[in-house]
Amino acid sequence: MDIKTLENIDINLASISKINEVDFENLTFGNTFTDHMLICDYENGVWQKPVIQPYAPFTIDPSAKVFHYGQAIFEGMKAYKDERDDVWLFRPDQNFERFNKSATRMAMPEVPEDVFMGGLKRLLEIEKNWVKKGNGNSLYIRPFMIATGKGVVAAPAVFYRFMIILSPAKSYYSGEVKVLIAEHFSRAANGGIGAAKAAGNYSAQFYPTKLANEKGYQQIIWTDDATHTKLEEAGTMNVFFRINDTLYTAPTSERILDGITRKSIIELAKRENINVDVRPVLVDELIDAAKNGTLKEIFGAGTAAVINPIVGFSYKEDYFELPKIEKSFALDLKEKLTNIQYKVAEDTFGWTVKI
Amino acid sequence: MDIKTLENIDINLASISKINEVDFENLTFGNTFTDHMLICDYENGVWQKPVIQPYAPFTIDPSAKVFHYGQAIFEGMKAYKDERDDVWLFRPDQNFERFNKSATRMAMPEVPEDVFMGGLKRLLEIEKNWVKKGNGNSLYIRPFMIATGKGVVAAPAVFYRFMIILSPAKSYYSGEVKVLIAEHFSRAANGGIGAAKAAGNYSAQFYPTKLANEKGYQQIIWTDDATHTKLEEAGTMNVFFRINDTLYTAPTSERILDGITRKSIIELAKRENINVDVRPVLVDELIDAAKNGTLKEIFGAGTAAVINPIVGFSYKEDYFELPKIEKSFALDLKEKLTNIQYKVAEDTFGWTVKI
Repeated sequence: MDIKTLENIDINLASISKINEVDFENLTFGNTFTDHMLICDYENGVWQKPVIQPYAPFTIDPSAKVFHYGQAIFEGMKAYKDERDDVWLFRPDQNFERFNKSATRMAMPEVPEDVFMGGLKRLLEIEKNWVKKGNGNSLYIRPFMIATGKGVVAAPAVFYRFMIILSPAKSYYSGEVKVLIAEHFSRAANGGIGAAKAAGNYSAQFYPTKLANEKGYQQIIWTDDATHTKLEEAGTMNVFFRINDTLYTAPTSERILDGITRKSIIELAKRENINVDVRPVLVDELIDAAKNGTLKEIFGAGTAAVINPIVGFSYKEDYFELPKIEKSFALDLKEKLTNIQYKVAEDTFGWTVKI
Repeated sequence: MDIKTLENIDINLASISKINEVDFENLTFGNTFTDHMLICDYENGVWQKPVIQPYAPFTIDPSAKVFHYGQAIFEGMKAYKDERDDVWLFRPDQNFERFNKSATRMAMPEVPEDVFMGGLKRLLEIEKNWVKKGNGNSLYIRPFMIATGKGVVAAPAVFYRFMIILSPAKSYYSGEVKVLIAEHFSRAANGGIGAAKAAGNYSAQFYPTKLANEKGYQQIIWTDDATHTKLEEAGTMNVFFRINDTLYTAPTSERILDGITRKSIIELAKRENINVDVRPVLVDELIDAAKNGTLKEIFGAGTAAVINPIVGFSYKEDYFELPKIEKSFALDLKEKLTNIQYKVAEDTFGWTVKI
């Protein structure tokens, strides 16, 4: 993918940068933002001229539909800096494509490529000092769109705002992750919005996750809502299971996000001659494999954490600890994937895009 | 219910009222707002002092969790004015209770009764001229809460804002409503948030509803997501079916909103010696009843429209027109219910509460 520079844009630079106030060694994920943000408004069917301006709160009507009816979507991406100070994105075309699929599902307008990708390029050029070198460092990119149109009537808005904000990040380490397999709660319905990166999908998980936290589990492995027999996602990530030396993951569907890290891991694992089986994975299979010792690893896959190994899981009254293994697929694939992202290893897939 | 006046509140009145600019005979539902709004912020575990101030846009951070993770809930209520210029609410205790149930499901803090009810009383006292007399006129009340806490990490916010905004309304007439029975899309998952008045539930319906609109249907009758055999809600309303002289409606569940109009209609119908059967209603039963002529009426029930008669429905390739009937349960129950709300008939249930 070649990202064209967007020329039709207004740029108002901040008079002072906050960058020297930031302790880049001690960043909490998603809490620090760069000096600028991109805004592009959609009014009466037309995308207006985008603007890059200092990051700041903005005003919005109390009746804006995002507050009442949840028309809101987002993407999560990262920018990486290589040893030559070049800034790279990882498969941004996939984020752009998925963003507009989410938009369609939420009855929101599609964002043009020149605004999304070209605008991001301009923003990253301005904020390039916020992308730090070194494995684990990245600039997390959050493109999102909200319904700003007014009115407390349950119908799609006429006005929308697309924004990009940027947050510097260290490698994401969430400690030892134990998970609970969902027996009652679920994250998505058949014919619902589970495959969209829609805001409402995430808050729906907070309460069940809080209950899991109280029992000592950091995340939930979601199961299908009708039968709770199929393993679908882990927290806000896709999930992989290694039984013997085969990696299993559920196919994407209306209930399961088409994760970019997920699909990259599948391709990477195949290149490494790891057997990958994309098919529904049953809770019963997992329990059997845990009991007979063939279950080797479980890990989540997503942009923020890349790969998040899971050390154990609970189902009904039983807790299953995963074995400590010598040659972890999770750690090996994570290293190979991040080496591509940081331009340490050759990108034979053509996934990386220079800004 | 006795609503106590809230004393611990700051009130900043608007210098000029907009009321004379409003054409009360030609109101579009949910688009006009009164002069003032109530705001109460939740900061670090404590609800702050509420304030009533002029209705206006407010500032919010681009990383506010409402935009990214959809932590947002609301209620819909109405205030009515009787012939003696007294202002009345209809079962406000039920809205308050449901609001806090929604809050819990979305991992948001409960709003105290003195803020929700006492604050609403103060706001309505100030805005009483916006409540117009006469059947069909009302002041629609929209209490809502959003996560204002910052940060693009998928976890509950620490900061929230509770608000009440008010919108004058005429009787809600949506024209002849034809509905499509959902065969693929759905609004709620088992173990999901369908029973909460969570913002994300509503935008999830926009796209399927748009597709239905394009086929000439105004609303969708939602079915269970697993089998699409059970009839659950109509658009954003609960739904009733009259077969012969019995009214059927689905029981409330995790997938079905515990509607206040719904439960009031059930009680009212029982008082009128109408047989009411609350049980899952199957698509097949409806088709059979339509074919053999025993299906008399279908109607939606909700705060905005009160009762919304449906003139026909489509399922797969077939369209079924409902008969024109002499003695409509829908119209009769709507009249009896609104007579209670407008204090024209005696409220033997104790549903109405004076401000």
